[in-house]
Amino acid sequence: MNAISDTVAEVLETAARAARAAAAQLARADRPSKDQALLHAAAALRARQAAILEANAEDLTHASGLSAAFRDRLTLTPERIDAMAAGLEQVAALPDPVGRTLAEWDRPNGLRIQRVAQPIGVIGMIFESRPNVTADAAALCLKAGSAVLLRGGSESARSAAAIRDCVAAGLRAAGLPEAAVQMAPTQDRAFVGAMLRAAGLIDLIIPRGGKGLVTRVMEEARVPVLAHAEGLNHTYVHAAADPAMARTVLANAKMRRTGVCGATETLLIDAAIAPALLPLLVGDLRALGCDFRADARTRAILPELAEAAEGDFATEWLDAVLNIAVVDGMEAALAHIRRFGSEHTDAIVTSDAAAAEAFLAGIDSAVGLWNASTQFCDGGEFGFGAEIGIATGRLHARGPVGLEQLCTYRYRVLGTGQVRP
Amino acid sequence: MNAISDTVAEVLETAARAARAAAAQLARADRPSKDQALLHAAAALRARQAAILEANAEDLTHASGLSAAFRDRLTLTPERIDAMAAGLEQVAALPDPVGRTLAEWDRPNGLRIQRVAQPIGVIGMIFESRPNVTADAAALCLKAGSAVLLRGGSESARSAAAIRDCVAAGLRAAGLPEAAVQMAPTQDRAFVGAMLRAAGLIDLIIPRGGKGLVTRVMEEARVPVLAHAEGLNHTYVHAAADPAMARTVLANAKMRRTGVCGATETLLIDAAIAPALLPLLVGDLRALGCDFRADARTRAILPELAEAAEGDFATEWLDAVLNIAVVDGMEAALAHIRRFGSEHTDAIVTSDAAAAEAFLAGIDSAVGLWNASTQFCDGGEFGFGAEIGIATGRLHARGPVGLEQLCTYRYRVLGTGQVRP
Repeated sequence: MNAISDTVAEVLETAARAARAAAAQLARADRPSKDQALLHAAAALRARQAAILEANAEDLTHASGLSAAFRDRLTLTPERIDAMAAGLEQVAALPDPVGRTLAEWDRPNGLRIQRVAQPIGVIGMIFESRPNVTADAAALCLKAGSAVLLRGGSESARSAAAIRDCVAAGLRAAGLPEAAVQMAPTQDRAFVGAMLRAAGLIDLIIPRGGKGLVTRVMEEARVPVLAHAEGLNHTYVHAAADPAMARTVLANAKMRRTGVCGATETLLIDAAIAPALLPLLVGDLRALGCDFRADARTRAILPELAEAAEGDFATEWLDAVLNIAVVDGMEAALAHIRRFGSEHTDAIVTSDAAAAEAFLAGIDSAVGLWNASTQFCDGGEFGFGAEIGIATGRLHARGPVGLEQLCTYRYRVLGTGQVRP
Repeated sequence: MNAISDTVAEVLETAARAARAAAAQLARADRPSKDQALLHAAAALRARQAAILEANAEDLTHASGLSAAFRDRLTLTPERIDAMAAGLEQVAALPDPVGRTLAEWDRPNGLRIQRVAQPIGVIGMIFESRPNVTADAAALCLKAGSAVLLRGGSESARSAAAIRDCVAAGLRAAGLPEAAVQMAPTQDRAFVGAMLRAAGLIDLIIPRGGKGLVTRVMEEARVPVLAHAEGLNHTYVHAAADPAMARTVLANAKMRRTGVCGATETLLIDAAIAPALLPLLVGDLRALGCDFRADARTRAILPELAEAAEGDFATEWLDAVLNIAVVDGMEAALAHIRRFGSEHTDAIVTSDAAAAEAFLAGIDSAVGLWNASTQFCDGGEFGFGAEIGIATGRLHARGPVGLEQLCTYRYRVLGTGQVRP
């Protein structure tokens, strides 16, 4: 841990105080103002497409030495800019999460108590070089009534600044403070450290990126973190599974997109059904380009599969690789998941409702599914309209984080002169 | 920050792993088992009264050099033991917070999504030498399905151990794992540091005690913290306040109990009503033994009051002292609260509903009250049946923390073979 220079700490404090003042205004902004800001920002993104592409081209020039995948994530196109604008419009169309009455009750002494959704305040967003995250995060935080301080990867700095300018134009047009959405004023890496230690200035840090970034954030942060760590997800094909459903669901859970956090990494299959079904499941996946790491009992059925090292069952491949273990029923499956899983997303395929109930009660994952693909772990698929990530901690929110999860609450207590005895 | 010796870290890890295994069992325990454990523990407290008093007498012998207030908090009596037992019985009578369906909806593709309350896991409770907190915290965590590791002040170690033994007897009687409620196995102060850094072993730290303890916990913790920091609370007597109601509410808010976090520390009063009402308010409070720190405008009306230093308005007295400032209406009152308040509990007294609404919308306190005493900021008064503290952070929970707030949630997704397109 390096000491943070006074200058960087001052720069952060100035930005965070401006954000806090803006957050106080934003917390009281009505829905039309926030939506107007989002719609103006979307229009600005479309109107300034050429300038954004130019900034992006410059970013790409400086990133010439980086991998093709990295450059692809960094690259903007007219279509991608249009998709960002459409994303802002979608957030504008979502209901306002602030001010919802979450619960309301009366006390015997006549006090009425209301629990009301409230913005979090100032959110610090730390992410890698994906320019679109600038627009996504700005839109969600704005609609949730919180100010946001965005610190993206330095390779995308010019693109992100151009996008942020469009959001600022939207804020201005709606009469909202521009400081509600700010970029980190410096690319000094110490600024990230300063953000992580800004207790009292920043209310919540959301890291979005690879394991290294998230781990650093969780280790260093003195501010609450809504982290998105790994998804070591299982699909358990139970003895009473419908074979055709198991084939469809597993193929989707593993291969629809292998790089998403909801992808299945390990297949558990009951010994009773394995000899008949495993060859079909593996055949389907192999045809889709999947590779395998199999335990001894699996290899007794399919000797051609590569042997799994024990570490494999603890590996989030995020790739076309599937671990396979044969298990002796529910308790063994749950024990495997408790040992190797990451409490993210786990599914059972079975036609036996009691088995499904035992599975859902026995796991402690943010999302447990019965007869559905693990790839449904997604804010959009949950009906949230948009998401800022998947929370893997246990406090505040678990699973997909949409506008509602980006809020906190407070109480309103309405009396008629009550005093406490 | 001192290095933590390997031994202490190992001791913690052993305890926390046992707690985690117990938590997994407890999470699946049904309500009757948990209630049986609580009722047996209450019976054991009553049955072992003599032994508990003996342990407490020994604690008190070793604490002979400490202040009278400290010794009072440490002292147990037959009545206090009975109150602890009654507290356990009250928690047993509360509904089970685990497994409640918090929300449920269907998706167009036929998926049914359920958000279900779930235990937090392993809770680390760090508190000062108040033996009763052992019983309270054990009961609430147990009912909420979480294991708890209790680290109380060393001066109360013998009393706390005797109380914990009663809880352990209750757990045994109910067939639940004793490791669900553990005392810290060492009084080494480094153990607290080890708890605070036990990310992955402990899911949540709850500190309960003075400012020094809470500040240390918030600074050092790598584990999420549900902190209970200061309550610098205001009662704002608006120009349209009913004078009689203002007198009753303020006297209660300040003087019912001055040492609780919901006590009012500062009176704000509108200039329009101050000349007539201030002398009455001050007279009432003075008769109850209250002292004052007054701003210049207050002293223009009541010159005999002591002058407030600016720091006074930022001081949580927790004593029979009231800060007073005369303000020019709503915006000035809100500005004062934003500058000096701690976002804990603030109240307005007014007969003007629009003014009340502006106040409740303008503050960002965990609890805002209209025409009621700030001393209502309490889990019992909110109808929670019992509370483990008042949360002053912005994430997960704000205000009184009862059984519901001691839970997290997870999702159950019920399908019929759906795959994601």
